[in-house]
Amino acid sequence: MYNAAAAATYYRDKNVTITGGLGMIGSNLARSLVDLGANVTIVDAMLAQFGGNHFNLSGYEDRIHLIAADIRDRSATDSFILNQHVIFNFAAQVSHNDSIRDPYSDAQINYLGHLNVLESARVNNPDVRIIYSGSRLQYGKVHSVPTSEDHPLNPETPYAFNKTVAESMYRYYYRLHGIDSVLFRITNPYGVRGQMKHSGYGIVNYFIGCAMRGEAISVFGDGSQIRDYIYISDLVDALVAAGASVAARGKVMNLGSGRGTSFREMAETVVRVVGRGSVSLVPWPKSYINVETGDFIANIDLARNTLGWTPEILLEDGVRITLHYYEQYGGHYFE
Amino acid sequence: MYNAAAAATYYRDKNVTITGGLGMIGSNLARSLVDLGANVTIVDAMLAQFGGNHFNLSGYEDRIHLIAADIRDRSATDSFILNQHVIFNFAAQVSHNDSIRDPYSDAQINYLGHLNVLESARVNNPDVRIIYSGSRLQYGKVHSVPTSEDHPLNPETPYAFNKTVAESMYRYYYRLHGIDSVLFRITNPYGVRGQMKHSGYGIVNYFIGCAMRGEAISVFGDGSQIRDYIYISDLVDALVAAGASVAARGKVMNLGSGRGTSFREMAETVVRVVGRGSVSLVPWPKSYINVETGDFIANIDLARNTLGWTPEILLEDGVRITLHYYEQYGGHYFE
Repeated sequence: MYNAAAAATYYRDKNVTITGGLGMIGSNLARSLVDLGANVTIVDAMLAQFGGNHFNLSGYEDRIHLIAADIRDRSATDSFILNQHVIFNFAAQVSHNDSIRDPYSDAQINYLGHLNVLESARVNNPDVRIIYSGSRLQYGKVHSVPTSEDHPLNPETPYAFNKTVAESMYRYYYRLHGIDSVLFRITNPYGVRGQMKHSGYGIVNYFIGCAMRGEAISVFGDGSQIRDYIYISDLVDALVAAGASVAARGKVMNLGSGRGTSFREMAETVVRVVGRGSVSLVPWPKSYINVETGDFIANIDLARNTLGWTPEILLEDGVRITLHYYEQYGGHYFE
Repeated sequence: MYNAAAAATYYRDKNVTITGGLGMIGSNLARSLVDLGANVTIVDAMLAQFGGNHFNLSGYEDRIHLIAADIRDRSATDSFILNQHVIFNFAAQVSHNDSIRDPYSDAQINYLGHLNVLESARVNNPDVRIIYSGSRLQYGKVHSVPTSEDHPLNPETPYAFNKTVAESMYRYYYRLHGIDSVLFRITNPYGVRGQMKHSGYGIVNYFIGCAMRGEAISVFGDGSQIRDYIYISDLVDALVAAGASVAARGKVMNLGSGRGTSFREMAETVVRVVGRGSVSLVPWPKSYINVETGDFIANIDLARNTLGWTPEILLEDGVRITLHYYEQYGGHYFE
C-alpha cells in the first residue's frame, strides 16, 4: 500500500528507464509505471542464463520502449540516460552462488556497470534520479534482528562486496556531485514473472516450481534459519513510491516484509499451497554453509515512514498468486 | 629493522614477482630482494602519468627480469603468476585525486586488476603468497588515533572504496580458497625513487621538489592536520619481512611510522633540511576539503609484533636522504 494518487500525478508523462527491465522486479515495475502514465523504456542486455524474459512484458509490448544494451558499455549508458527523469537501475547479476563461481563478471556488472550509469548521469543528465537495488546480504551475519540500516555492513561474498561498494559509490556521487539517488537493501523477493529454471533467481519461486513438479524440496539443516520474503507487488509499490518521493532523496532503506519466516515453514507453506511435492531435510552442503548468513529480518520502519508504504501480502497469499500465474503461463518460464 | 638473516635464508633462490615494480615502493623492494638472493621479476604496465621509472632499477637491470604487462589483462596475470613463490601485488593507480576525476579507471586497476591476480592464483598457482598494499584511507575519518586495525572502515572516495573492496576480496580468497595473503594498510610513504612531477604520488616528495626549486609550499588551513609519514626503507623492511613470515599469513596490518607529524611541521622540516623554499598557509580548496580525513596516526603494534619489525628513520633524516638522492639523480625524475 502506498499513495497511488500522488504517484500517478508524479509519473504522468515522465520518462522512466528501467535497466534489467525484463527481469522479475523490472518487468513488474514497468507494467505498474505504464499504468500510472509514465513513458517507460526498458534497457536489458538479454544475457543467456539471466533473469530476463520477453514474456514478462506480455500485453504491454506496445507501450514499452525496449533497448538491447548492457550497462557495462559506457556508450550505451551515455545514450539511454538522456532526457530521463528516473532510472531504476536494476541490471544485475542476481545469483549469489554465481558470484562465487565468477567474481569478476559479478564485479563488472554489479559494480562497474553501475559506475558507468553514475558517470553518465554526472556528465549527461545530472538531474536524473536513480533508484538502486542493493541486497540484505550487504549486512552479512547480523548481530540482531529485525535489522535496521545503521547495522554495520559485513559483506562476505563477491555478490555482497559488489553490492556494497556500488552503494558506497552512489552515496559518494550524491554527496560530491549531487546525483540524486534512492538506495535499497532488498530481502528475498519472490512472485510472478521470476525465472523458474533454477534456484539462483529466488528460492521461493524455485521451490514453487519444485512443488508443481511434485518433487521433494531440499531444506538444509533443520530449516530453522529465518528469512524475510517480500512479495513482488509489495516491492513494486515501494519502488514506485520511491521514484516519486522527495523525502526519499539520498536515503538508504531496507525493503522486506518485516516478518521472519523459517526456511522450513516457507517450504511447508509452498507444499501446502501447491498441494504437491514434499519437504526433505538434508545436511548443509559445504559450498552453502560457507555463505550462510544466519537469521535475517528487515526492520522496515524507515521505508514505511519515508514512503508512506506498507507491505500487505502474506507469504501464503503471495505463493498462491504466484502458483496461479505459473499454472497459466509456466510454459514461458520452465523451459 | 627486522630479522635480515632470516629473510636472507627465506629468499635465497625464491621466485618473487613485484607488480607495479617500477614505482617507488616496488623498485626499492626489488633492489632489496635481489640483494637477499631472490630471483626477482618486475611486472609493470609502464603507463604514462603513473609512478614507474626505469631509472629506479639503475645498477640492477641485469639482475631483474622485467615484463611489460597490465594486471587488467587476465591472460597476463595467468602467465606471470606461474612458478612464483611470492607476489608483491603493488600495481596501482596511486593518486587519490585522480580517483575522483576517473573512478572507473581506479576501479579497473585497484580492484578488478587485483581480482585477476587472485583468480590466476586460484587457478594456476594456489600456493603462492600475495602481499597487498592497501591504504590508511580505508579508515576514512577516524574516531581515535593512533588507529588500530579493528577501527571501522569508512572509506569516502573511489580510491578508498576500491582499496577496501580489494582487501575484502583478498580476505575472501584466503577464507574460501586458501590463497595465502598478507594485507597492509599503508600510511603516507615517501623517499628515494618516488615520482617528483606532481603531488599525486606522495606529498613529502612533492614538497621536497618544491623546496629544491625554491618555491613557496602551500599548506592548507592552519596546517595542524596530523599525518603519519613512513620512510621507504622502513616500509621495504616490513614488506620483506612479511613475504617471509609464517605468522603474517592472512593478517591485515597497518604500516606507518607510528608517529604523528602536523602538515605544517612536515613542510617546515622539508624547507629547513633543503635550505630553500618557504611555507605558505592558504585556505582549503573545496575539492580537497571534501576528501580531507582529519588526523591520522597508525597504531603499528600488530606489524611490530608479527614481523619483529621497527621503523627507524625520523622524518628529518628521511627528508635528508631523499634530498641527497634527488640532488644526484633529479634529472631522471623532475622532467
